[in-house]
Amino acid sequence: MVETERPLDALNQARGKRVIVELKNKLQLIGNLKAFDIHINTVLAEAEEWENGEMKRKLGTTFVRGDTIVLISPA
Amino acid sequence: MVETERPLDALNQARGKRVIVELKNKLQLIGNLKAFDIHINTVLAEAEEWENGEMKRKLGTTFVRGDTIVLISPA
Amino acid sequence: MVETERPLDALNQARGKRVIVELKNKLQLIGNLKAFDIHINTVLAEAEEWENGEMKRKLGTTFVRGDTIVLISPA
Amino acid sequence: MVETERPLDALNQARGKRVIVELKNKLQLIGNLKAFDIHINTVLAEAEEWENGEMKRKLGTTFVRGDTIVLISPA
Amino acid sequence: MVETERPLDALNQARGKRVIVELKNKLQLIGNLKAFDIHINTVLAEAEEWENGEMKRKLGTTFVRGDTIVLISPA
Amino acid sequence: MVETERPLDALNQARGKRVIVELKNKLQLIGNLKAFDIHINTVLAEAEEWENGEMKRKLGTTFVRGDTIVLISPA
Amino acid sequence: MVETERPLDALNQARGKRVIVELKNKLQLIGNLKAFDIHINTVLAEAEEWENGEMKRKLGTTFVRGDTIVLISPA
Repeated sequence: MVETERPLDALNQARGKRVIVELKNKLQLIGNLKAFDIHINTVLAEAEEWENGEMKRKLGTTFVRGDTIVLISPA
Repeated sequence: MVETERPLDALNQARGKRVIVELKNKLQLIGNLKAFDIHINTVLAEAEEWENGEMKRKLGTTFVRGDTIVLISPA
Repeated sequence: MVETERPLDALNQARGKRVIVELKNKLQLIGNLKAFDIHINTVLAEAEEWENGEMKRKLGTTFVRGDTIVLISPA
Repeated sequence: MVETERPLDALNQARGKRVIVELKNKLQLIGNLKAFDIHINTVLAEAEEWENGEMKRKLGTTFVRGDTIVLISPA
Repeated sequence: MVETERPLDALNQARGKRVIVELKNKLQLIGNLKAFDIHINTVLAEAEEWENGEMKRKLGTTFVRGDTIVLISPA
Repeated sequence: MVETERPLDALNQARGKRVIVELKNKLQLIGNLKAFDIHINTVLAEAEEWENGEMKRKLGTTFVRGDTIVLISPA
Repeated sequence: MVETERPLDALNQARGKRVIVELKNKLQLIGNLKAFDIHINTVLAEAEEWENGEMKRKLGTTFVRGDTIVLISPA
């Protein structure tokens, strides 16, 4: 059995894929995961802002400060 | 008597098992604990989001930022 | 007179004993203190979640992230 | 394929361009991105404060403390 | 004139004495100051929990996580 | 074109000038920027406290803890 | 012109003088500044707790945890 060993490995496997980023302020960002660092600062390409299941805005390439993030999952 | 010595040892023993992760925003995540690090950044496989005893969403493999976590217990 | 010198010494003396852990979210956890580290990340065995003097859930062996803890006292 | 490797690279590419900075207090700042550092402390030239889609104030060259920032996207 | 030079010196002079510890959650703890460290993690012996001038509970020897503390003054 | 390279350079250029400091608690301080450090701890001379466009108090030379600051802009 | 260079120099000049310490919880402490450190942990002698312009309590020599402080100004 091959296992993901470290949390950032899992993020690395999501690179280039479409992800949902849940923020502490209850908003969701959906975009292509382009980059992240150890603080979980994250860059999403073609990002969209969603709230309560509704798309609010297209944001373009967006930098997200890591400490505002709750979780990152596949879109 | 054998004792768990350090808190991360206990998490390590939960690796590969189904756990409940309680978040500061009152949500619960239930999934298979795949990975964690010293910040308690955590990866859950086949994660589900629960709120007030009700399953809200299936999330897939999910990265959870450690500073949003209150506790991790067996599911 | 023998004095506890450092706060973690007091926690160490509580190891293996039943403690109450008060959380910032107003919940209480009661369990056997198995392990802790310098961040006050803590593991409780046979943990129970209490709220307003009422037991809500049995949690089993539970990892608690240190930054959610207000205080730890004897149960 | 050329990829942005690190989140701060994406911010660097936005240098000199007009950006929206979303703050934790729900305000938006719009300005020319002049400078930033690893804490995401940021300087915007010709900054404006917006709230709910309405421009509230012109601020001039503004220093923003990084820990108040949620995200930075193109204006 | 002899002056206290560093804040922790003042805490050190309160060691063994009865103190009031004000917490961010508005509760007060009153107890004998047994130990503290540079994070202001604190141990109180014979601690009591007070709220709005009323004693709520006797806690025994209590470990208080430093980041929940507002101030410490003589009881 | 000469560009400000680092955020603290911009603050340095504001030294000795009248600035508005916006705080997380919604208050504004207006004063002459005398000093700051890497935490953005800041000293304002002849500081005034403003709330909702109204001057509340004259504070004199005031030390502001950096982590309470949202932004600093010209007054 | 002689200028205060660093924020802590300004605090140092206030040592032994009566100051107002504004806290994040909206309370004010007034006392003689006896000591402070780089975290802005502060000791006030003959401290008083004020709220909305009214003196609530005399506290005596009081240790204030730095991260609860908004600003320090002359009393």
